[in-house]
Amino acid sequence: MILDKINTPEDLRQLPEDSLIQLCADIRQKIIEDCAENPGHLGASLGVIELTVALHYVLNTPYDNLIWDVGHQSYAHKILTGRKDQFKMKRQFGGISGFPKMSESKYDSFGTGHSSTSISAALGMAIAAKINGETDRQSVAVIGDGSMTGGLAFEALNNAGVHNSNLLVILNDNNMAIDPNIGGLNDYLLDVTTSKTYNKLKEDVWHILGKLNRISPGMRSFIQNVDNSLKSLLLKRSNLFEAMGLRYFGPVDGHDVNHLVKILRDMKKINGPKLLHCITVKGKGLKQAEADQTTWHAPGKYNKDTGELIKEQNPSPTPKFQDVFGYTLLELARANDKILGITPAMPTGCSLNIMMKEMPERCFDVGIAEQHAVTFSAGLAAKGFIPYCNIYSSFMQRAYDQVIHDTALQNLQVVFCLDRGGIVGADGATHHGAYDLAYFRCIPNLTISAPLNEEELRNLMYTGQLPHQQGPLVIRYPRGNGFMTNWKTPFQELPIGKGRCMIEGEEIALLSIGAIGNLAQKAIARIPRPTIGWYDMRFLKPIDEELLHTIFSKFKKIITLEDGTIIGGLGSAVIEFMNKYHYNAQVSRLGIPDKFIEHGSQQQLYKLCGYDEEAIYNQICSLLKE
Amino acid sequence: MILDKINTPEDLRQLPEDSLIQLCADIRQKIIEDCAENPGHLGASLGVIELTVALHYVLNTPYDNLIWDVGHQSYAHKILTGRKDQFKMKRQFGGISGFPKMSESKYDSFGTGHSSTSISAALGMAIAAKINGETDRQSVAVIGDGSMTGGLAFEALNNAGVHNSNLLVILNDNNMAIDPNIGGLNDYLLDVTTSKTYNKLKEDVWHILGKLNRISPGMRSFIQNVDNSLKSLLLKRSNLFEAMGLRYFGPVDGHDVNHLVKILRDMKKINGPKLLHCITVKGKGLKQAEADQTTWHAPGKYNKDTGELIKEQNPSPTPKFQDVFGYTLLELARANDKILGITPAMPTGCSLNIMMKEMPERCFDVGIAEQHAVTFSAGLAAKGFIPYCNIYSSFMQRAYDQVIHDTALQNLQVVFCLDRGGIVGADGATHHGAYDLAYFRCIPNLTISAPLNEEELRNLMYTGQLPHQQGPLVIRYPRGNGFMTNWKTPFQELPIGKGRCMIEGEEIALLSIGAIGNLAQKAIARIPRPTIGWYDMRFLKPIDEELLHTIFSKFKKIITLEDGTIIGGLGSAVIEFMNKYHYNAQVSRLGIPDKFIEHGSQQQLYKLCGYDEEAIYNQICSLLKE
Repeated sequence: MILDKINTPEDLRQLPEDSLIQLCADIRQKIIEDCAENPGHLGASLGVIELTVALHYVLNTPYDNLIWDVGHQSYAHKILTGRKDQFKMKRQFGGISGFPKMSESKYDSFGTGHSSTSISAALGMAIAAKINGETDRQSVAVIGDGSMTGGLAFEALNNAGVHNSNLLVILNDNNMAIDPNIGGLNDYLLDVTTSKTYNKLKEDVWHILGKLNRISPGMRSFIQNVDNSLKSLLLKRSNLFEAMGLRYFGPVDGHDVNHLVKILRDMKKINGPKLLHCITVKGKGLKQAEADQTTWHAPGKYNKDTGELIKEQNPSPTPKFQDVFGYTLLELARANDKILGITPAMPTGCSLNIMMKEMPERCFDVGIAEQHAVTFSAGLAAKGFIPYCNIYSSFMQRAYDQVIHDTALQNLQVVFCLDRGGIVGADGATHHGAYDLAYFRCIPNLTISAPLNEEELRNLMYTGQLPHQQGPLVIRYPRGNGFMTNWKTPFQELPIGKGRCMIEGEEIALLSIGAIGNLAQKAIARIPRPTIGWYDMRFLKPIDEELLHTIFSKFKKIITLEDGTIIGGLGSAVIEFMNKYHYNAQVSRLGIPDKFIEHGSQQQLYKLCGYDEEAIYNQICSLLKE
Repeated sequence: MILDKINTPEDLRQLPEDSLIQLCADIRQKIIEDCAENPGHLGASLGVIELTVALHYVLNTPYDNLIWDVGHQSYAHKILTGRKDQFKMKRQFGGISGFPKMSESKYDSFGTGHSSTSISAALGMAIAAKINGETDRQSVAVIGDGSMTGGLAFEALNNAGVHNSNLLVILNDNNMAIDPNIGGLNDYLLDVTTSKTYNKLKEDVWHILGKLNRISPGMRSFIQNVDNSLKSLLLKRSNLFEAMGLRYFGPVDGHDVNHLVKILRDMKKINGPKLLHCITVKGKGLKQAEADQTTWHAPGKYNKDTGELIKEQNPSPTPKFQDVFGYTLLELARANDKILGITPAMPTGCSLNIMMKEMPERCFDVGIAEQHAVTFSAGLAAKGFIPYCNIYSSFMQRAYDQVIHDTALQNLQVVFCLDRGGIVGADGATHHGAYDLAYFRCIPNLTISAPLNEEELRNLMYTGQLPHQQGPLVIRYPRGNGFMTNWKTPFQELPIGKGRCMIEGEEIALLSIGAIGNLAQKAIARIPRPTIGWYDMRFLKPIDEELLHTIFSKFKKIITLEDGTIIGGLGSAVIEFMNKYHYNAQVSRLGIPDKFIEHGSQQQLYKLCGYDEEAIYNQICSLLKE
């Protein structure tokens, strides 16, 4: 294997050009083999192997800046930049991250994870180089057509067009986000790729000429000449990116590594902001992955030889929370025709695809566009619909202003379903839904809830669409599986702002919010009854003051538990209450500490954060001793 | 005056078309006269009078949805929709808002204030109408070329292009945000307006034809025909908005009310998403306003006859905080060539224009694009520069994810200067910088500070660029004037995370953060010394635990004071500390209560929120009695 000899881009750049195809094959094999055992974002990474090799071959990395938007596609980059051996440990606790990360490698010019950031960061670096007079220094952003729909990418393009900096944007056009990419931009890119604009224009020109009725053979040859000249002019001038001030090149085949090398060499010589449009295939080189790109975005384990997906040996008997959302929404929507489903490019990830299948006209995949997802939902709500807007907790950070300014301020009835709340696991620091409870609690008019289990999720979703429900409701639930085998329970309205006592106790009260409460239950089960009382608060806001009065009147030792940042969430709300009503108790707050938490399994990270079952148990014991 | 007879759009629609020009003149006169006395956003509103009249004349408002992006330009709309008499009281406490507001009028289809939301909301309404089968119902977004640079607008356009809904986007192109609009999009719009693309293409075609050397007179006439046909084809097909899937019309003169009526009538008949490009002049009809559009965006009082700006009779002897920022940044930048200035379209509003004048190459107006401003800054910081990224507190809500994901997570040295923190006054609920302390406190790696006065602002800015400073620093200061006449004090490093005792006391400790502490000082001055101790915390995060130990060891009665939401900010941090270290004190928290605060003067709103000087004094007295 050529790859055996390659540990850094410097090694790569010693290779003759005619070895590059083989090197790509080696890398592809390694990724396919490794990911079969150690799952990751396979599809995107298979799609950019040739591009990655060509970029490191032509660029002078790490002097040249190379930024991978989102970072799902960075596996070949990781393998080529000193992390070949650690690759097996990607996304595992203590191993390398699944995303580019500045602290991990000097070749990772900028950390990514969320979409659409790369052009802004690369433009910053290009301007930095320009100010420093480093005219030879390249700054390259590799961004997918899906990420290009995010507003941040457009803001960056708009700004890039007016700076004469060495910015190169590589548009990795595979016609996909995680699900198929949808939107005007996507249609446009298809149009460019297939030259539809040009062909239509040509047709129109001939049509006009036909009408003129004066075509002689000489004229025809003349027209042919005009026509060919028009083609090059048009493809250039009618281009959306040219309109924004970037020079446009392409489209080119993103799997022809030698051609890419040639083009990139040529483009390096051209100053100013420019864009190279590459057509790639997500999952390239693995038949199954090419055929079903959504499944193979992050397929889990598979047989590396046959490409057969390996089913979990002991599949969970309980459903994923996301599927409870999906099936419940469909059930509710069948009964209430005001209900709509909104997702920013995550129909599969959040299971809105379940409702989509039956009611496509009532579901909206708006692209990677969290801001728009929220304000669009607010517009629908202003006209009497009840949108269920499902956004991963971590991505909701993108739409914070739209929740405040467009929804809460106008008290519109939008149900925000925050999937992946709390620790998410292998995706790590960029993806934990750590802050939502804190960042939403300070917003007036918001009702904030987190279900303990599947039944509660269903009931909260049911409650959110009732006619007397007012204003926006947040329902926040975690990544992964629930706790109930028979979860399709009859709907029941939950009173807003009311918690409940789950276990009566005498010495210590444990107050939890959300599904993490199930760990508390296990920990409490290890203590003889009736020592520990357990309260499922259900609502962070409004918080159940009546229940808190009961609790603080009885207990002097209180533990709060939440799968969210310890600053500003449930624990803070509880001690704010205590202070307001002059109670005096010892409140121990368990939650995510004030630092960024890396990747690992959810269990490993709960432990790291001090609220796995054992840590809760220990906290109880330590309080009992005091 | 025709306007005297017009109270609603229904009245307007009774007028003959030939009265519309006079009506526009009447409205213009009213706006100019009223705003002379009762200042507001004059420039934008003068620019859309004809458009407003034409829209209400042709549309069936309020059945048809009409959304004004940002809302600065909504004065004619307010005057025509039942608020003619209340117009004098706009932006005043108890009066009508300066922005569209759903709760104020059924003609305000959607509340605005922040930029770039209108297309998303209008698309939501257009889809709602489509689902309801209301095929005659129009949904119209009026959006400026400045707002069009915001990523949210692009996300909405991208999504609009794939829905066959009755969406009409009116691009109000005046080449301005508050300051001149900058960016690739702006260049493009100028290009469209002046038909540069077409002219260049025509030139190229003739050039090619010239080369062919076979032009006969017959041929020439033939070419002329092709040429004219090409023009219409090209203007359509090479269009950025057509590329996104919207039908493009224009550009048209946005001050020809009768022509606008005709066009809008025609466009109503066309189904599907469409965009009308109107060219308008900001400040239209007032000579001075047209000539200096930035000053006249919101000019304050002026002489309605001469158009002369009226200087304040007793101008403040102390500077605006924004100017302290502006002059200090220039001073620091002269000494440290790593310092750069970044603003999302607010060079005048935040006073970055002071540095811009002297060092244009080190200042970046990135357009209305808060997200990009932050990630661009992070990119610069990753390469060793120290960007001072100035964003109004309320607009920072737009860049929340970029602060977390692109800056704090990578611990990059960006100095975030948050102007307009706390209650802002007349702009009201959409613009108060109420949530920043709370929404930033939960983010790891962030240092959060708020200066008491000008000197402190200078010293925090100085501290932020010192070589040993690590990670992002937030400096948050209010709208309006400071407190010092001699504010250009020598720079002094402030120790991170350290507060200070301002007044020693014995019975009650008052802990404040930021400039609102000056009200505390006044209130305390009314109590005989040494009853009340006053502590300026300076840093919300890290909070000065040493100082808090001293305070909690001494005092049993504590007041916290902040110009920010009472949930999650300084008061919460203080009682979290108290709980953590098992202190027991009575802590009264003063700050913005858990509701949206409307418009009024800052003093009126401080009073409303319970923390003007009097309220602080009363709180002290009440605690003293207990």
